[in-house]
Amino acid sequence: MSYYLKCKKLDITTGGAEIILMNEKEAELYGVNPGDKVSLIWSKGKKLTATVDMSEKEVKHGEVGLFEDIWKKHNIEEDDIAEVILESRPLSIETLKKKMLGKPAAYEEIYALIKDIVDGRLGQIETTYYAASGFVKEFSEEELYFVAKAMAETGEMFNLGVKVADKHSVGGLAGNRITPIIVSIVASCDIYIPKTSSRAITSPAGTADTMEVLCPVSFPIEEIKKIVRKTRACLVWGGGLKLAPADDKIIKVSRPLAIESYDKMIVSILAKKVATGVDYLLIDIPVGRGCKVSKMKQAVEIGEKFIRLGKRFGMKVKYVATLAREPLGRGIGPALEARDVLRVLQQHKFRPLDLENKACKLAGDILELKGHCKEGKGFGIAKGQIKNNEAWKKMNQIIIAQGGKKDINSEEVMQEVERYEIHAKKNGRIKFVNNRAINEVCMNLGAPVDKYAGLHLHVRFKDKVNKGQKLFTMYASSKERLKLGILAAGKNEIFEIN
Amino acid sequence: MSYYLKCKKLDITTGGAEIILMNEKEAELYGVNPGDKVSLIWSKGKKLTATVDMSEKEVKHGEVGLFEDIWKKHNIEEDDIAEVILESRPLSIETLKKKMLGKPAAYEEIYALIKDIVDGRLGQIETTYYAASGFVKEFSEEELYFVAKAMAETGEMFNLGVKVADKHSVGGLAGNRITPIIVSIVASCDIYIPKTSSRAITSPAGTADTMEVLCPVSFPIEEIKKIVRKTRACLVWGGGLKLAPADDKIIKVSRPLAIESYDKMIVSILAKKVATGVDYLLIDIPVGRGCKVSKMKQAVEIGEKFIRLGKRFGMKVKYVATLAREPLGRGIGPALEARDVLRVLQQHKFRPLDLENKACKLAGDILELKGHCKEGKGFGIAKGQIKNNEAWKKMNQIIIAQGGKKDINSEEVMQEVERYEIHAKKNGRIKFVNNRAINEVCMNLGAPVDKYAGLHLHVRFKDKVNKGQKLFTMYASSKERLKLGILAAGKNEIFEIN
Repeated sequence: MSYYLKCKKLDITTGGAEIILMNEKEAELYGVNPGDKVSLIWSKGKKLTATVDMSEKEVKHGEVGLFEDIWKKHNIEEDDIAEVILESRPLSIETLKKKMLGKPAAYEEIYALIKDIVDGRLGQIETTYYAASGFVKEFSEEELYFVAKAMAETGEMFNLGVKVADKHSVGGLAGNRITPIIVSIVASCDIYIPKTSSRAITSPAGTADTMEVLCPVSFPIEEIKKIVRKTRACLVWGGGLKLAPADDKIIKVSRPLAIESYDKMIVSILAKKVATGVDYLLIDIPVGRGCKVSKMKQAVEIGEKFIRLGKRFGMKVKYVATLAREPLGRGIGPALEARDVLRVLQQHKFRPLDLENKACKLAGDILELKGHCKEGKGFGIAKGQIKNNEAWKKMNQIIIAQGGKKDINSEEVMQEVERYEIHAKKNGRIKFVNNRAINEVCMNLGAPVDKYAGLHLHVRFKDKVNKGQKLFTMYASSKERLKLGILAAGKNEIFEIN
Repeated sequence: MSYYLKCKKLDITTGGAEIILMNEKEAELYGVNPGDKVSLIWSKGKKLTATVDMSEKEVKHGEVGLFEDIWKKHNIEEDDIAEVILESRPLSIETLKKKMLGKPAAYEEIYALIKDIVDGRLGQIETTYYAASGFVKEFSEEELYFVAKAMAETGEMFNLGVKVADKHSVGGLAGNRITPIIVSIVASCDIYIPKTSSRAITSPAGTADTMEVLCPVSFPIEEIKKIVRKTRACLVWGGGLKLAPADDKIIKVSRPLAIESYDKMIVSILAKKVATGVDYLLIDIPVGRGCKVSKMKQAVEIGEKFIRLGKRFGMKVKYVATLAREPLGRGIGPALEARDVLRVLQQHKFRPLDLENKACKLAGDILELKGHCKEGKGFGIAKGQIKNNEAWKKMNQIIIAQGGKKDINSEEVMQEVERYEIHAKKNGRIKFVNNRAINEVCMNLGAPVDKYAGLHLHVRFKDKVNKGQKLFTMYASSKERLKLGILAAGKNEIFEIN
């Protein structure tokens, strides 16, 4: 389609952007949408490409408005007649159509699509079609690779120029604060492990929330590189960086339906790992009620897909799927979890052994994956790094490099806040731990916004308890907030005794 | 999930809407989105249901803000503790999920979905998922019936209490202005035919644009009923009415990808016919290059689907699929088409016979469908109603009822505007008529915004022409606009001579 319009010089500058203004009604009739690209050929036979903006009144029917930048640069005169040609739809739109019809797409097509989502050339409607297209036909593994690659390449890339290890837990339970321990052990073995973590989304604490009790976690990328060069590691918040920025936009349109496929989850994790230049990746998949993955079979499928896709990026991947029945560690809530972490690293007598063992298991897996030691030796080495205090020294270094206080003692992590104890109402055994109730009570207490809010569990799954025995302690920063937590705890039983 | 929050009385009224305010950060952690429904149970054991709004500062962490309407009505005191329970997602969201997974939906589910789209409870993202779901799995005919029914029932219903006929053309060519003639003939036979039409979307004229040359076309629904009771008919613009209002919202999210399935088109047409209470429906399907339907086989499939779906609504449907090679009539553009219409009805010597015959054919089909006459007799009766002047008398009545001038003569419809003739450059035969070029030239001349802009074609497909013979005349309201049309006509040949 081509249309002729009379040029109108506008007395407005756009700061260099090549934008033309069309009459809204006319543009609609011509099938031109705001943001469309058009070619403009004016009477002197010259051509330019511009983006269309619309106006109801600024430009009359039969006219095209040219901002000062354009008419000055191209020497266009008032009343010149210009031919306006609508350029074919962008490649990303064609690709979307293809995917909506269930057809495969090539890398350059998927790259264009992801790039246009990142740059906002495609809006929420188009991004929703992208999210929906996976339901028309599952993306092939090659396409998932393309998407992860494109998502990484359209954001910041974090290249340290060294071999890098990482670990990622796939949607686990509250209190699963193994990450800081693993990072300390691995880095103490002289392996690079720059860890970016999220804050809590709908839980009482994320790794970034927990670390923030000990030191700042939000840094620009250059600062993070300095910290990593100094300590081999970091424990920072990843949300402020522009790693795979398409992901946030896709998550936003996925939220209303709350249906995220495992494929989308794998791709979004991998994209961030590619962006941070990971060479050795350990995937931890907690399995059970309240976890993102509820069946072992699914965990295996997810893990194997991680391995195959990672391979395409030259990444060595290993996964560990374990049944999760209750939180690891005793504390839930940022500060209570930070205390558990330091208790393990400082070998405090009340340290949670389940947390220590799981962290050593996974750290050992990374050591083996990296070829630091033989298969089967990783766990022992990891334990050794805790016993000989090297892991704590490393954590101390990281805390200091990130601007925290040096030599923090595990017992000074918690502050004096309001507390309330819940006791067993009868004799028996802990038959069931309600993870969802734990989350709910913690959040009613104010976690994670209030860093000192949360729970400390005194008993564990299968423990024998006596009537009147302490089951858990609630912490909150104010009496009011504590009251809310007590109400929530009264409503949902955390420990089922039988 | 349930959470406890402290009530805060806000000094703001909402005019009766039951809305509560949550702290943004907290709501996010609790997985509550703006617009979600929650139950509020406060200490007195009373319960209310409200919609969540969010605020960053108005309401602190641990508080729930109550607008004056709520706390006054329900006697809630400052510092009361309320349990906030997130209600399960609305049925429409569950239905969307179902459809995204390719599962069938029941009527009440589809009704809830369409109703929530109309009421804005589902936004653009959710509406896009709805549009996308047809690509996951084609809707069954039962579901298409549900959708059409729900779309009709969630808008204005136009019940005249009499049997009503209608006709609808499925995306045809420019200048296909048979509708006003058909309506005049059918109504002159004492059959109700309240016709709502659209304005041009990406063409030089819609039926509403053409009629607007003769009389007003935009009325409230009660006014339209009066016109119809008086004349048995109307020829009004349907866009101002709230017939099947979900349609516009769905079209809006379908536009960026420009992929409308035939099923969606059928449903959207049928929904409007159900809303206007149609009993006898004639579907006109022009087939060919430049039409919405390009192959006869598709036309048959579409037509048969119309028949089957219409039957579910108790609607008698007939379809007519005809090859369309060029516009019917001589004029293209609102006034030029209105002139053609009046020339036919007033039996002017220059009237376009192709337009007359097609209109009589379709009007005759409606007469037969309604049982007004025997099969095969409709065309003759329709012709007779034109010859005996009854059709024109009816049109005159309609124009008057809609507030137009009485006894308009076909030759006074066009105004004195700028004109320019194009002549044949060689001897030969018209081998091809470029419908797309016709549209383009007309729109460059200013149609449909300028009602007097457009083309009059002096020759037709297969005509023999001599060098220098007039091919078509261009009309525009200004010399400048005429110039744009001339440029467009120079670029794209309307008649190919060979």
